[in-house]
Amino acid sequence: MDTHGVVHLSDLRATHLRRVLHVSDGQPVRVGLIDGPFGEGLVLGVTDEVVTLRCRFEPAPPARPAIDLLLAVPRPKVLRRLWSQLAALGVGRIILTNAAKVERNYFDTHLLTTAVFRPLLLEGLQQARDTRVPEVSVHRQLKVLVEDRLDDLCPTEVRLLAHPGDAPSVAEAVREADGRRVLLAVGPEGGWTDYELGLFSAHAFRQVSMGTRTLRTDTACVALLALAHNGGLHA
Amino acid sequence: MDTHGVVHLSDLRATHLRRVLHVSDGQPVRVGLIDGPFGEGLVLGVTDEVVTLRCRFEPAPPARPAIDLLLAVPRPKVLRRLWSQLAALGVGRIILTNAAKVERNYFDTHLLTTAVFRPLLLEGLQQARDTRVPEVSVHRQLKVLVEDRLDDLCPTEVRLLAHPGDAPSVAEAVREADGRRVLLAVGPEGGWTDYELGLFSAHAFRQVSMGTRTLRTDTACVALLALAHNGGLHA
Repeated sequence: MDTHGVVHLSDLRATHLRRVLHVSDGQPVRVGLIDGPFGEGLVLGVTDEVVTLRCRFEPAPPARPAIDLLLAVPRPKVLRRLWSQLAALGVGRIILTNAAKVERNYFDTHLLTTAVFRPLLLEGLQQARDTRVPEVSVHRQLKVLVEDRLDDLCPTEVRLLAHPGDAPSVAEAVREADGRRVLLAVGPEGGWTDYELGLFSAHAFRQVSMGTRTLRTDTACVALLALAHNGGLHA
Repeated sequence: MDTHGVVHLSDLRATHLRRVLHVSDGQPVRVGLIDGPFGEGLVLGVTDEVVTLRCRFEPAPPARPAIDLLLAVPRPKVLRRLWSQLAALGVGRIILTNAAKVERNYFDTHLLTTAVFRPLLLEGLQQARDTRVPEVSVHRQLKVLVEDRLDDLCPTEVRLLAHPGDAPSVAEAVREADGRRVLLAVGPEGGWTDYELGLFSAHAFRQVSMGTRTLRTDTACVALLALAHNGGLHA
């Protein structure tokens, strides 16, 4: 992009502008800078190869989503589906961790490398029209994460732990957080062990529930984030 | 199963009992009859081939989930993922329909045949520990469905239409339904047309929102059902 905001696109974005949006000269389109502001692009020219836009941007980027997620690494098939969904629903930070019931080989997957997950996150952001890329970190020791790292990563957040049962609903707990950032922990499919539950409890995590149905990790994450955001809406 | 509730299992359920639950003689396990009650099975014997249980069941099946879903047929890749998730989240009826922005070839998929989707629904029910199989119907003409069929399929339900924008949230609308069954309509990825919105509006559908983010159909369905069930919890 030059200093006048003029950009020449020849990648998938150009294809989308031509084949899906069927843009023509003078047409305005929504644009956004990765981790930057939204804006509007004016189509200056369309050829078979290149779409040229002149872009103007808002003065500031949108707010980072107010929910962070601490998630026991799910099996690769589930993790693959999750990246774009998490970005689409809106999450500020994704903290992936080991746990007793996480199989060791789940850490070998290329889905935990930035080169693989970043395009999936961007896909979700495009879908949902957001620009804020979730910050991702991967931790191989839950104890070290919770005891030594979490206060730096999420210094002032309300800490919630999703667990099946009778606890208050996540929407209610987020409503009570009253605008403060929320860190939501979601366990492995086999659940947290008693030791792990004790560790979380000793570090200010409060249990929340979403009913008695046991859900697959990806279904649970989507459902919990939807409820958490909805709780925030009504804060 | 004989008249004393004794059943000999030699399929995937036997494998699950042996290899995942590691059952032994005398151990109680949770059981459920498809579209029937929950119960408890006592392990009477375990061999390499067969697990024998004696089952007792509760007098009545669990209640059918109070949310029904009217869904524009999504692309096959998304539909494949949705079946088990919908059953796991809990939905009484799944009404699949054509719409202007549904591609015609979406109806050619084997994923719309009972032989293919029923095992996926059962997988979701097992995950969530439910027995009530959602009733499924497929409709090739939205107008005929809404004008002529819907009053028979869902005679007394509160009708909601999910649409991006400023409408009240789905959780709020379900809360106001105050225990009545809710029928929730979810559109194709390109949205409903103005004609379709008018059709729904003329047949008592009220618009609800879940915020300004545009979500993929599977993410949207999971998020909306989570919100709808949560609204019901607080009715």
